[in-house]
Amino acid sequence: MARTGRRPGQTQTRDDILVAARNQFAAHGFRGATIRGIAAEAGVNPALVHHFFGSKDQVFVEVLNLPFNPALLVDTLLSGPREQIGERILRLFLGLWESPDTQLPFFALVRSVTTSPEVADQMRQFLETAVLGKVAAALDLPPLRLTGAAAQMMGLAIVRYVVKAEPMASATEDEVVALVAPVVQYYFDG
Amino acid sequence: MARTGRRPGQTQTRDDILVAARNQFAAHGFRGATIRGIAAEAGVNPALVHHFFGSKDQVFVEVLNLPFNPALLVDTLLSGPREQIGERILRLFLGLWESPDTQLPFFALVRSVTTSPEVADQMRQFLETAVLGKVAAALDLPPLRLTGAAAQMMGLAIVRYVVKAEPMASATEDEVVALVAPVVQYYFDG
Repeated sequence: MARTGRRPGQTQTRDDILVAARNQFAAHGFRGATIRGIAAEAGVNPALVHHFFGSKDQVFVEVLNLPFNPALLVDTLLSGPREQIGERILRLFLGLWESPDTQLPFFALVRSVTTSPEVADQMRQFLETAVLGKVAAALDLPPLRLTGAAAQMMGLAIVRYVVKAEPMASATEDEVVALVAPVVQYYFDG
Repeated sequence: MARTGRRPGQTQTRDDILVAARNQFAAHGFRGATIRGIAAEAGVNPALVHHFFGSKDQVFVEVLNLPFNPALLVDTLLSGPREQIGERILRLFLGLWESPDTQLPFFALVRSVTTSPEVADQMRQFLETAVLGKVAAALDLPPLRLTGAAAQMMGLAIVRYVVKAEPMASATEDEVVALVAPVVQYYFDG
């Protein structure tokens, strides 16, 4: 199915870049891979990679079909009062897991990370560099506290959506937020 | 390698019971499976299952090669002052993940639960019945709070030991306890 507004040649080039990017991330990790290296392997000009994806972060998001955009995450964290940051990020996160569009990619990601040390390593570098590092800098927060918040939210998703342990699985979003948002807020209060 | 003090016939019988138990848990779930049904499938007297394993919980622990014993977990939770329960359970949990004997079974468990909906379902029933239900009753605690604590600890293990995100992966046990024990305690304070 052709995407609207994109000519067949463009779709092919974009796919070539994604294949090259997957190889480069596998060979060099997220940190070691470069737009220049990806472009070279795909046989295109680096400007074209920027044109299609904008940044290396975005290429990675597309390659791993990540169900979230780290740029959006950072925007959400920074918009609104800091004393409500725990609830804000938690509701965004729960919304991604509840939505049919993003739930399946999330399940796939959890499976890849827990079964493939290579994917776990790429995700580790991506999280450290593109997500945790940027958020910690923007909020002037010790990175260890951020990984604590990430741990709470990942574990919540596994208990509620993967293992489906009761009563967490059937609790309403408001009940979950009432219980867990103070914890996320604690980590962000620094 | 023969185990000390167990005759070859006993080892065979024990293995037969474990194979039967694996089938019964797969067919009926943790809740639906019974010692009687496991014994019938193995062609032995139910008393022999009790003799080898003690309880259905223990049979399940052996079948899934679980790296922890829920009875020990409950004992640890209940021994010592309640206001230190968060630190106590967290140190026990970190110890299991740090020990070479229990780390590999933990990794295998995380992989099974995230890739097999059937194992996830068996674990869910086991956690609800043999772990969370008993702890909630012993501590007179709302079960939702317990699943929150479980979520925090599972997520911590995934960030620290599976994804190995820094700085959580390299933090000392005392640093992790200083950051996360107050959260676990919050859930147990009810």
